[in-house]
Amino acid sequence: MMVKNRLLDSELYIYQDEDWFKFSIDSVLLAHFVTVNLRCKRIMDLACGNAPIPMFLSYRTNALIYGVEFQKCVYDLGVKSVLENHLDEQIKLVNDDVRELNHLFESDSFDVVTCNPPYFKVSNDEFTNSNSVKAIARHEIHLNLEDVLRTACYLLKNGGIFAMVHRTERLIEIIDIFKKYHIEPKRIQFIYPKASKNSDLFLIEGIKNGKTGLKMLSPLVIHKNNDEYTDVVQDILNFTNRGE
Amino acid sequence: MMVKNRLLDSELYIYQDEDWFKFSIDSVLLAHFVTVNLRCKRIMDLACGNAPIPMFLSYRTNALIYGVEFQKCVYDLGVKSVLENHLDEQIKLVNDDVRELNHLFESDSFDVVTCNPPYFKVSNDEFTNSNSVKAIARHEIHLNLEDVLRTACYLLKNGGIFAMVHRTERLIEIIDIFKKYHIEPKRIQFIYPKASKNSDLFLIEGIKNGKTGLKMLSPLVIHKNNDEYTDVVQDILNFTNRGE
Repeated sequence: MMVKNRLLDSELYIYQDEDWFKFSIDSVLLAHFVTVNLRCKRIMDLACGNAPIPMFLSYRTNALIYGVEFQKCVYDLGVKSVLENHLDEQIKLVNDDVRELNHLFESDSFDVVTCNPPYFKVSNDEFTNSNSVKAIARHEIHLNLEDVLRTACYLLKNGGIFAMVHRTERLIEIIDIFKKYHIEPKRIQFIYPKASKNSDLFLIEGIKNGKTGLKMLSPLVIHKNNDEYTDVVQDILNFTNRGE
Repeated sequence: MMVKNRLLDSELYIYQDEDWFKFSIDSVLLAHFVTVNLRCKRIMDLACGNAPIPMFLSYRTNALIYGVEFQKCVYDLGVKSVLENHLDEQIKLVNDDVRELNHLFESDSFDVVTCNPPYFKVSNDEFTNSNSVKAIARHEIHLNLEDVLRTACYLLKNGGIFAMVHRTERLIEIIDIFKKYHIEPKRIQFIYPKASKNSDLFLIEGIKNGKTGLKMLSPLVIHKNNDEYTDVVQDILNFTNRGE
């Protein structure tokens, strides 16, 4: 069922479908993590879903923000949200295949590319029989890591920034693929559900043809022991209020 | 000047030279981090210095522990410490070049290899003119990462464990070299000087010819905001008291 929700505590609204597509905190963390500076003119969000990342980023930059989403019904939610929030001048959504963007955009034409991609390999049997909207958003059915990095490398200017959130258990493979597509990892932040737990997710940012040298940011712990958000996460969730 | 110190709060003593060689907390953390199980029969510590890691490990295992140290004067401190602590039945120190161990040991003959290697590249100009004992322990003058991983791979049985501590800024390169020598990274723990600081060091453990799949352990924060050790670190520093 389609519902209209406040986008966190911001003035924005986002359309979601409670049965098959809701944005997650991962998108908020990624939109907050990625380096966006004043020289940034064009941003691309790959596999943008119902466009939470483009909408969050609109609080941080005046750059033109594109989002690409393959699934028509999810794309439609994004378009509706962007229109409702009067962001259609800044955010342009495209209903197309991330793997085919070379037909729509010139190479070396973006300053920043972001992606909160499908996390799970298709070999994960319990899901692969399902070809539902949710399965496509969560599993590498239509889009895998190599597709994402190949496309990011194609779209980015030399020195441009690629930022992604992904599962920690796939870190080693992800670093391999970053290197293969000439995106040098520069900043990583591990996300921990609680301070005493293993990390499940991480944020990573690389620079196209960048020099080596990595910064490992302070651990990002989501919940206190009493299950409330930590102060750091509460600050991030509030960032749309601060005009950052 | 040579001094005899208590090895943390343990019953052990360690000989050090305050001018040019003291063991660091990094060695304690590595000796605590590495997986050592009951089937483990032979352990090798590469570039063992004055042997803190072999001596710490003697609290965790009955395995035979070898340590190799190239610098004679540092090796001598280790031998003196091992004898003083009556550990010479369990710990065998060798004064030789890590790169030449194939002349001394058979391949595929160790269950576990550990290393707290020189951290800094030689291109770091301020140090490279100095060929002192300290410079060799800290810089890749006689021993670089490739030497360490090549040797570890040579010594380890199939399925054997390699564990190392190193600087976080070199993570990407280290993962590359692990893969090159068929040591699959399985557990990583980042070390943070304080909870709000970037990580400076990390612990990493891999398995020779292991399957992919990484576990990112909870962040290891060294100091509280008041500069005291955190409870977790205090527990680790006390581990020699607990007969672990």
